[in-house]
Amino acid sequence: MAKPELSALLSQKVAGTKSSPIRDILKLTENKNVISLNGGYPAPESFPIETIRKLTGIVIDKGPDIFQYQKTEGYQPLLDVLPSFLSRKNRQVISTSENIAITAGSQQALDIIGRLFIDPGDKIAVESPTYLGALQAFNPNHPQYIEIATDSDGIIPASLEQAFIDHPDIKFLYTIPTFQNPTGKTIPLSRRTEIADILKKYGKLAIEDDPYSETRFEGEDIPSLQSMAPDNVIHLFTFSKTFAPGFRIGGIVAPKDYIDEINKLKQGMELFTGGFDQALVAEYIKGGYLDEHVKRIAEIYRPRRDMMAQAITEHFPDIFDFTVSQGGLFIWVSLKKDAQQLASKINMKELLDEAIKAGVSFVPGAAFFANSKGNEIAMRLNFSNQSEENIVKGIRIIGELINGKLSLA
Amino acid sequence: MAKPELSALLSQKVAGTKSSPIRDILKLTENKNVISLNGGYPAPESFPIETIRKLTGIVIDKGPDIFQYQKTEGYQPLLDVLPSFLSRKNRQVISTSENIAITAGSQQALDIIGRLFIDPGDKIAVESPTYLGALQAFNPNHPQYIEIATDSDGIIPASLEQAFIDHPDIKFLYTIPTFQNPTGKTIPLSRRTEIADILKKYGKLAIEDDPYSETRFEGEDIPSLQSMAPDNVIHLFTFSKTFAPGFRIGGIVAPKDYIDEINKLKQGMELFTGGFDQALVAEYIKGGYLDEHVKRIAEIYRPRRDMMAQAITEHFPDIFDFTVSQGGLFIWVSLKKDAQQLASKINMKELLDEAIKAGVSFVPGAAFFANSKGNEIAMRLNFSNQSEENIVKGIRIIGELINGKLSLA
Repeated sequence: MAKPELSALLSQKVAGTKSSPIRDILKLTENKNVISLNGGYPAPESFPIETIRKLTGIVIDKGPDIFQYQKTEGYQPLLDVLPSFLSRKNRQVISTSENIAITAGSQQALDIIGRLFIDPGDKIAVESPTYLGALQAFNPNHPQYIEIATDSDGIIPASLEQAFIDHPDIKFLYTIPTFQNPTGKTIPLSRRTEIADILKKYGKLAIEDDPYSETRFEGEDIPSLQSMAPDNVIHLFTFSKTFAPGFRIGGIVAPKDYIDEINKLKQGMELFTGGFDQALVAEYIKGGYLDEHVKRIAEIYRPRRDMMAQAITEHFPDIFDFTVSQGGLFIWVSLKKDAQQLASKINMKELLDEAIKAGVSFVPGAAFFANSKGNEIAMRLNFSNQSEENIVKGIRIIGELINGKLSLA
Repeated sequence: MAKPELSALLSQKVAGTKSSPIRDILKLTENKNVISLNGGYPAPESFPIETIRKLTGIVIDKGPDIFQYQKTEGYQPLLDVLPSFLSRKNRQVISTSENIAITAGSQQALDIIGRLFIDPGDKIAVESPTYLGALQAFNPNHPQYIEIATDSDGIIPASLEQAFIDHPDIKFLYTIPTFQNPTGKTIPLSRRTEIADILKKYGKLAIEDDPYSETRFEGEDIPSLQSMAPDNVIHLFTFSKTFAPGFRIGGIVAPKDYIDEINKLKQGMELFTGGFDQALVAEYIKGGYLDEHVKRIAEIYRPRRDMMAQAITEHFPDIFDFTVSQGGLFIWVSLKKDAQQLASKINMKELLDEAIKAGVSFVPGAAFFANSKGNEIAMRLNFSNQSEENIVKGIRIIGELINGKLSLA
């Protein structure tokens, strides 16, 4: 008669899995009256609706094959057009259609990477801080995270090398070299060369996650790590930021033997990625629409970033460092080194609760540290998904709340 | 300088993972001159192309939200319309929008089930034979399979009960009660009641995979196992057979606490299932197009099934049993009990190789046994994806090859 007890059935992989703080915050802020600075959402007004309409017509006219089961490897016309997309100046990735796997956005790529490489206790090197969604994808495999120190130019090469010396069994480095999530930081060219050399020297693998390099709105493109060490780097890409997230299309560039293993795993996971979505992206690239779109989002995002940076300067107390990057979606705010004595006065969870009540949300920094200490005084602020007016209003509210805490104490 | 050695990096989960025999056969038969009786593909001429065109227009007109990131739980208008779809006579599933999770087809549902419940060595009860894709989804979690004996009416309830007695630690039963893959068999009502009672008596969980119950072309609908034991049964559904596989939309019905765990896992896997595809399916159901389509595929599949059954009778030697089911996509051919002495004369791998050379493909039976003995004299034949003429031609070729083997020996 008994209902099976869920807790007795759950595998060790998922037992104790926590929901994402971002997801929880999103639920609290579904209310449209809350100014959400938390998600990494593109601006909805940037979505190329009329292009999508045109492309759906083109794809449907091609006849029934696109609606049938597809091979796991991907839709061939998309695979064929990707190497040229990947070789653009912002990536310079070296690839052929044979060493690319298609995934449902880059989140699925991260899930595949985690399942492919991580056994419980395996060591993974990550930036400190790093992308929360990658931690979520890797966590069910129970890795041990080795945090690599970063400065304003991202990963410090000496720290990475020391980690490979101290932990020769590190399975891979996970890094977002361009407009990092959450910090917005970009690793400069010279440092990338150093990192590539370290990977080669120690025979190590890096996962280079690049969802943002097309969102550059100023400065010079920097070649990918993959372009410097294609045997040592798996490169991830996505069209969520440059087409629309609602089409779940991303992918993995890796040596051919890796791609074969990826596709074997992927077949059991979902057989193949949606064919209609794959065909739409193929037409989107072939039609040259991506180039137009990238220009358009730069025009939208740049003033929003500027407005947010200015508002932070104006409304936050002068105890924070914050990043102003040349692209991407985020500004990262963190307590200055010489203001650490103020840390005890700010409880980030409390600040978030009060901010949501006052009509604005953000993501507290702790979520982005693999081995979080719990109350890192930092926050990730998204500028792509709100009007300039809302950005200023949101930042002002958060600033006032922080000032209140400091004066109270 | 070294390239990281892939074999040293692979996790124990995936090390030794084999590619699917179906996938390998599909590659061999991409050549359009081979009559493929192997895939479980719907008829491409059934795809509702003009409906799809209309629905894409409707969805695009709704504005940008559908192209944005969606909540992991699913697109609300789809969740809202599913309970009435699931309560149709062919399922009679008991659900609300709160206890449904959306997945990228039912393959992703199987992947989620495997990850959620299976630790290495855990016991899983499966039909003998069972769906190859489920084995592929479960295998990376390294379960131990307990095969449950079946007869012409599917699972034998006494065998299931004995398995629960012999192995009280079985985590779940995986079953496809309606038009089973690969056999086409359907468990009758009285036996479903018995199985539901056994599940309740032993407090056991069943995964009821139902991709086919809408493809019934004759006979009476039979309620799902879930309708008889909603606390003990997780029900899987998909629109791959009733809309088109190219839209990867399926789902899971389960008690609410299970759905919460599923969505936590799914968020790390891919954040959410494609919003555009979800919206298309929602409009497809709401517009009543599914009802029309189900009638249409019955009209296409029924004569194909009849033609295949007739051709088998005519061209195969009288040493096989074969199933003629009231729906689904497959006929299962297996050596009669009183012809087992002929088994040594037929090497199924050899037969398949010769068949492909002669222009027709099928899936050898061994692939569908969880604990395969290697040369089961059986084959799965798909009738949904070929013209009546091709079906007859394909069956004639296979029959001649088998006759040749028997007379040679």
